[in-house]
Amino acid sequence: MDYQNYIRTIEDWPQPGVSFKDITPLLADAVAFRTTVDAMCAPFQGAGITKVLGAEARGFFFATAIAYDLGAGFVPARKPGKLPYKTISESYVLEYGENRLDIHADALTPQDRVLIVDDVLATGGTAAAKTRLAGRCGATLVGYSFFIELSFLKGRSQIDPDLPCSVLVTL
Amino acid sequence: MDYQNYIRTIEDWPQPGVSFKDITPLLADAVAFRTTVDAMCAPFQGAGITKVLGAEARGFFFATAIAYDLGAGFVPARKPGKLPYKTISESYVLEYGENRLDIHADALTPQDRVLIVDDVLATGGTAAAKTRLAGRCGATLVGYSFFIELSFLKGRSQIDPDLPCSVLVTL
Repeated sequence: MDYQNYIRTIEDWPQPGVSFKDITPLLADAVAFRTTVDAMCAPFQGAGITKVLGAEARGFFFATAIAYDLGAGFVPARKPGKLPYKTISESYVLEYGENRLDIHADALTPQDRVLIVDDVLATGGTAAAKTRLAGRCGATLVGYSFFIELSFLKGRSQIDPDLPCSVLVTL
Repeated sequence: MDYQNYIRTIEDWPQPGVSFKDITPLLADAVAFRTTVDAMCAPFQGAGITKVLGAEARGFFFATAIAYDLGAGFVPARKPGKLPYKTISESYVLEYGENRLDIHADALTPQDRVLIVDDVLATGGTAAAKTRLAGRCGATLVGYSFFIELSFLKGRSQIDPDLPCSVLVTL
């Protein structure tokens, strides 16, 4: 499948100079969506993943379907003030600003084997924050699965270089 | 499975007097999460669902996994300003305020058979907005699947009474 047939580029969004990759055409196509989820899971089938960690909000698109497909649980990393129970937090610099991600303090344990999932690896800020969150819980981070990597933003430099990082589309 | 074992009640969140149902323990448990997704899909297997419509952000938790499980596409309904392409909008009154939901104008067509999915049916405001959005696209709405219904908030009165509405936990 040529994934790029299902990615719509929106120029100057959300701000001038940004060429945004809109994946909603892919999500809306049943075959393309299923093919993408299966391909994002494939390198990690049999890896004993117990939790998939995905960040609000676009990260949820693939992360929950991948958790279902891998037979794992799903842990949402959310923006400040969105999680109701005791949380731990990490700050990060985003492509379009700065923010913080929270997870529930009891969401990951030293027994967990974690896969970090997102639609896009851009500057790597959220992936790095999720990496630190998993580490603070004592969980074993097994790898990363991204649909798109915007390689010119050098996000790879922000994530753990010793772990497998699966990408389906490099732009 | 007793779903209530995986639901954590947080009193006075997000504001005094609200008893919030935190489903993150359920999401994090691989077996409970899979059992819940399968049970939310079950009434609609074989119903020819082509698109699952879920609203930002907690609605995405189940909606994408259900789309994957049903072999359907996924359409995100998002808060204002979050979708990059041409949108249509519906306003609604929320349990804790007022807001608007957008979908991409090309996300649903008259050929689509749509299932609306959310974690909680509360006042029914977002479910009603999603119902109107599907209708404006000329799509056929097939039914609703909610994990929890807060029946004292009478959300059922806001959705299409002629369509099946599946609920796993009534509180």
